[in-house]
Amino acid sequence: MKTSRAAVLTQYEAPLELKEFPVPETIEPGAALVKVKLAGICGTDVHLWHGQLPIPLPVILGHETVGVIEALGEGLTSDWTGAPLSAGDRINWSSSINCGECYYCRTKPQPTRCLGRKAYGISYSCSAAPHLFGGYADYIYLRPGTAIFKIPEQLPTEAVVGAGCALVTSLHGIERIGVHMGDTVVVQGSGPVGLASLAVAKASGAATIIVFGGPPHRLELAKRFGADVCIDISESSVEERKAKVLEMTNGFGVDVVIECVGIPEVVPEGLELCRDGGRYLVLGHYGNAGTVPFNPHVITRKQLTVAGSWGFEPRHTQAALKFLARNREQFPFEQLVGKPFPLERAFDALQATASWSTAKSAIAP
Amino acid sequence: MKTSRAAVLTQYEAPLELKEFPVPETIEPGAALVKVKLAGICGTDVHLWHGQLPIPLPVILGHETVGVIEALGEGLTSDWTGAPLSAGDRINWSSSINCGECYYCRTKPQPTRCLGRKAYGISYSCSAAPHLFGGYADYIYLRPGTAIFKIPEQLPTEAVVGAGCALVTSLHGIERIGVHMGDTVVVQGSGPVGLASLAVAKASGAATIIVFGGPPHRLELAKRFGADVCIDISESSVEERKAKVLEMTNGFGVDVVIECVGIPEVVPEGLELCRDGGRYLVLGHYGNAGTVPFNPHVITRKQLTVAGSWGFEPRHTQAALKFLARNREQFPFEQLVGKPFPLERAFDALQATASWSTAKSAIAP
Amino acid sequence: MKTSRAAVLTQYEAPLELKEFPVPETIEPGAALVKVKLAGICGTDVHLWHGQLPIPLPVILGHETVGVIEALGEGLTSDWTGAPLSAGDRINWSSSINCGECYYCRTKPQPTRCLGRKAYGISYSCSAAPHLFGGYADYIYLRPGTAIFKIPEQLPTEAVVGAGCALVTSLHGIERIGVHMGDTVVVQGSGPVGLASLAVAKASGAATIIVFGGPPHRLELAKRFGADVCIDISESSVEERKAKVLEMTNGFGVDVVIECVGIPEVVPEGLELCRDGGRYLVLGHYGNAGTVPFNPHVITRKQLTVAGSWGFEPRHTQAALKFLARNREQFPFEQLVGKPFPLERAFDALQATASWSTAKSAIAP
Amino acid sequence: MKTSRAAVLTQYEAPLELKEFPVPETIEPGAALVKVKLAGICGTDVHLWHGQLPIPLPVILGHETVGVIEALGEGLTSDWTGAPLSAGDRINWSSSINCGECYYCRTKPQPTRCLGRKAYGISYSCSAAPHLFGGYADYIYLRPGTAIFKIPEQLPTEAVVGAGCALVTSLHGIERIGVHMGDTVVVQGSGPVGLASLAVAKASGAATIIVFGGPPHRLELAKRFGADVCIDISESSVEERKAKVLEMTNGFGVDVVIECVGIPEVVPEGLELCRDGGRYLVLGHYGNAGTVPFNPHVITRKQLTVAGSWGFEPRHTQAALKFLARNREQFPFEQLVGKPFPLERAFDALQATASWSTAKSAIAP
Repeated sequence: MKTSRAAVLTQYEAPLELKEFPVPETIEPGAALVKVKLAGICGTDVHLWHGQLPIPLPVILGHETVGVIEALGEGLTSDWTGAPLSAGDRINWSSSINCGECYYCRTKPQPTRCLGRKAYGISYSCSAAPHLFGGYADYIYLRPGTAIFKIPEQLPTEAVVGAGCALVTSLHGIERIGVHMGDTVVVQGSGPVGLASLAVAKASGAATIIVFGGPPHRLELAKRFGADVCIDISESSVEERKAKVLEMTNGFGVDVVIECVGIPEVVPEGLELCRDGGRYLVLGHYGNAGTVPFNPHVITRKQLTVAGSWGFEPRHTQAALKFLARNREQFPFEQLVGKPFPLERAFDALQATASWSTAKSAIAP
Repeated sequence: MKTSRAAVLTQYEAPLELKEFPVPETIEPGAALVKVKLAGICGTDVHLWHGQLPIPLPVILGHETVGVIEALGEGLTSDWTGAPLSAGDRINWSSSINCGECYYCRTKPQPTRCLGRKAYGISYSCSAAPHLFGGYADYIYLRPGTAIFKIPEQLPTEAVVGAGCALVTSLHGIERIGVHMGDTVVVQGSGPVGLASLAVAKASGAATIIVFGGPPHRLELAKRFGADVCIDISESSVEERKAKVLEMTNGFGVDVVIECVGIPEVVPEGLELCRDGGRYLVLGHYGNAGTVPFNPHVITRKQLTVAGSWGFEPRHTQAALKFLARNREQFPFEQLVGKPFPLERAFDALQATASWSTAKSAIAP
Repeated sequence: MKTSRAAVLTQYEAPLELKEFPVPETIEPGAALVKVKLAGICGTDVHLWHGQLPIPLPVILGHETVGVIEALGEGLTSDWTGAPLSAGDRINWSSSINCGECYYCRTKPQPTRCLGRKAYGISYSCSAAPHLFGGYADYIYLRPGTAIFKIPEQLPTEAVVGAGCALVTSLHGIERIGVHMGDTVVVQGSGPVGLASLAVAKASGAATIIVFGGPPHRLELAKRFGADVCIDISESSVEERKAKVLEMTNGFGVDVVIECVGIPEVVPEGLELCRDGGRYLVLGHYGNAGTVPFNPHVITRKQLTVAGSWGFEPRHTQAALKFLARNREQFPFEQLVGKPFPLERAFDALQATASWSTAKSAIAP
Repeated sequence: MKTSRAAVLTQYEAPLELKEFPVPETIEPGAALVKVKLAGICGTDVHLWHGQLPIPLPVILGHETVGVIEALGEGLTSDWTGAPLSAGDRINWSSSINCGECYYCRTKPQPTRCLGRKAYGISYSCSAAPHLFGGYADYIYLRPGTAIFKIPEQLPTEAVVGAGCALVTSLHGIERIGVHMGDTVVVQGSGPVGLASLAVAKASGAATIIVFGGPPHRLELAKRFGADVCIDISESSVEERKAKVLEMTNGFGVDVVIECVGIPEVVPEGLELCRDGGRYLVLGHYGNAGTVPFNPHVITRKQLTVAGSWGFEPRHTQAALKFLARNREQFPFEQLVGKPFPLERAFDALQATASWSTAKSAIAP
């Protein structure tokens, strides 16, 4: 019987444990068995490790994964777009599956807020068969209903993992807030979501993009991706950043600010950077990081629009793969990914992400 | 020489002083001299009296006024809509005049954020001739460029003053956030802006409207205007109000919440009342009332859209007069106005508004 | 063995034939067997009878149906909104089922343009078991995946059939073109779609609604539903109708025109009734009724927005039932339905619709 | 006394006449006297020459002009954006002036449909002083209220004239129909409006752009501007073009089609190229070119949105200059302009535009 290794989170804030699970021999109709090629480490994985979101331990982490089809269940003959699927195809998939039946799937379509949504690498315990529901493993088992996408041949695996769930998150968020040709934009944050938002804003025709972030290697990437100005947050105060933005906008502020940080304090800072009638996207607050003193008067007086965006839909994954293929030269997401860690060093990979020592770390089992 | 009395704010938090000013004998081209019939007391006047917004004292307060044309300057022959104007016509006007030339008038059209905007009853000192720039007076002088509107004959003066700047503010705000046929709505507040927002939401086809407010005489009006449920804030806790809203919406929250209070604490309360993907309008925060602890995570997680709205444009004043004429029976705004005060008791009128003892007080000089 | 009668279209333009089919004894999981209470005759049925749309004859017509649950397949325990379902419940359902997998279900969400959409009373031949896929019958069989809705108790069956697929069609169309509070509207047509569009526009806050149509009994209903002005098309010319609309709008035309006729000639007429910057909804052109000379210059010069809308989604059926329950007094759709025909006179019912002798005919088996 | 030569249209379809007019010695407050550097010949000028739009002959043609300020009237100290203006500055200006008072300036803001709009080179007779209201002249006189813009130093005069009124027209039109990142687009036409629409769509993030047009030198420019595929209309049939578009879009059609031709027949062709739920912009129909057989069923069945757009506002002129400065390398609009004609050969320049022998001809007085 074949087995698969997997790096398991068994206890919050403890090292991941390398375990072996049987590789399922029969695949149920509509499901797929996939050999993992590269699994990205998302910032969310760090939050999960700290126990900041309740999950059904033990869990195999990993929701940003590229793999190769090993076996297909009956009836699964094409990917989400209708392209034929067969063993050996290199694929990516939406990390979540919707229930399709709840109030948010049906009545008020907000599919990312599906009440029954479950995500690989997050919502499934590995204690029951077929166990393999996370990317930090040799194999992953995709349940029926997973939105699978063949990866265009010319697109490197590293680019897909480098873009990870950051790019789909940004595509969804910017769809909600709108970045229009000629807009001036501030991106707060230069992590994966910040870089992806920069890329999407740039590709949407933004005229000027200012990135706040750090450390320097990430700001280098921001420059490479087309940021007009980068400001290192560790070398500037709130007042200095505001002064710079106002100086670049005749004292008015920018059309759109995109928050990609997740620290409450940046929200009041960012609202002040919008011109009157401007737009603010709260994109980085997936975790509950507590409160910040906030003055609602700024929303009324500056006549702002503020939007939040949660997760993404399969159509964003499809759009992301097209985006990556179309803009490979302009936005080389593969450069975010450092040298991959072997599976047995999954915990080191997680710590590399936690410490921001790379833009993005990854595991090649 | 004819004179006009006027109630003047000469010092913050001191009683208004009744003074006499010469009535101008010549009217410059495009201007108008108007005899005041009824001047509304806005909640903003109370804030001005406390000195919460800087204004060029001494100022004749009053920006919600109906009057009759006494004399027209050369060239002023029609109202803002093109209807002919002549002495004796009963009129209302937009309280602000835009510069028409700034960044917000031109480049990023946000006309209510005009950099040079000046408002009757607020921005003009009465120390220089022609002095009469506020509604708490026998006469008011309308400068060239004022957006003047003839009042339809069948529409009572009290209805126009009762709607005051609350209705135009609500029309603008709800234009920004959107209330669609079939929506469920919470209105936070039952003062003039709350009642006007209730009316506009109702007329936009809202299916269910819940009003939070008080005191009881205002909630009676809310019922009269078509609120489905009214909750007295003095007899309910934040948790009880939330429980009621969730109970009425299968546990999901409403489509739209409209904030018409101006107290920061109600904003976090209101955000929690939105369903996921819902909308929140910060409409009542004209004054700077300080900060409140706020968790940006709610915006991301619930995927909300939050909008602010400031002031209104002349087209909203035109729409408000049509709205009042069209919906007189359904929304009898005249019932907001108590027995008018004579001009010499202007300060009592102001205190009646400050103490919420009527929905709206007014001065009939 | 129980049998069900059904009125079958076996040959275009020939009388319907009353046939008997076995009532299925076993219901597959997720399906339902329903006893028909009232089946509406839609104008589309007349087009189908003429052979204007290709369908797989023989077909049991009828896609606007109210029935009572006779038996439920395994697993079908709640309606589309999650409310519990059991035998004896009075229900309505969306007439179409989407594939959920095609380009228009997934990538560019336009679910009403699903490539695999199939509709009761239209797309299913009755030659294969379980045969009963149309409303003109004693029983109808609802396949797994049908969006079923329990009907609120206080809502009469006749109101649901009277609103038929016209109301859901109007809800979808007006969602696309937008009718906002205060808008002036022309509705071209006073058939079921015209009356439903009038109702939806009215409930959305339209200030003035002008209906073009006939015969007089339908215009009476339009008046009853709140039309401000009705113009009988048989007693007016294109020029006269235009003159009336311009007279009512200071010569500018209305904000929105809704086409509910299906005759190409009305489109150029209607575009001329829009003010500059106005909106035009092509809602009645379900059938291909050929071409009309059309000048594209009008679109550019008047800066119009023109939209089409096809069919409806289950969420529109849900909204329609809520709309009917909420506005029963204002819009008594039951008044559209004449005295029901017995099933054996199904062909007379069809001809009554064809001849416009009632607003809507119906069959009570 | 100084004089200015001007090429005057005195009779439709007759050669332009070179006349002399006195250069005004006093400039009224708010006005400006400008020495013409380069005057573009717009396709509209050809229509005017044929008498297809009524204008008050005799008229000095020319509404796409760059000049240098010779003298400024009192009070004109800054351009439309607030930048200081002085003699010697190189400028461009919006060709139209709005009344600011009509129904379309105020109530239903559609400023491009202003009822009192007047345009340089079109609406002013040159028979009365100060005569010089068109660009085909040594000098042009700009009336008070003209929206004047200083041209950024690095931007060549030829680029501004090459973009002409085509770019502002496209910016306005695409603002109305929307081109979003990742969209597939067909541009019908490769004249100045077609090329400008291609540029704006490209800069808005369109993923794939197909241009229909000719002759070859214009399609070369389209390629240079980033068209993915160009199809010469003289070497292809309607069916072949449709086949190519469907082939490139899996048989579905594109997201957006932009009509930049002005020939009615292309509209039905273009509607068929849209995917279901797609968008169609009628941008080229400034002239009334008659009717075409059109089937409204396509709008309903394909659930399309069709929009028209007329002219542009000063904010589009401001945006166009920024666009040109920002994207100089990607979209070298100066390449549209052939070798300028001297003023005495203005009629030859007009004929060069009429015959499509250059993308755009121009006059350098």
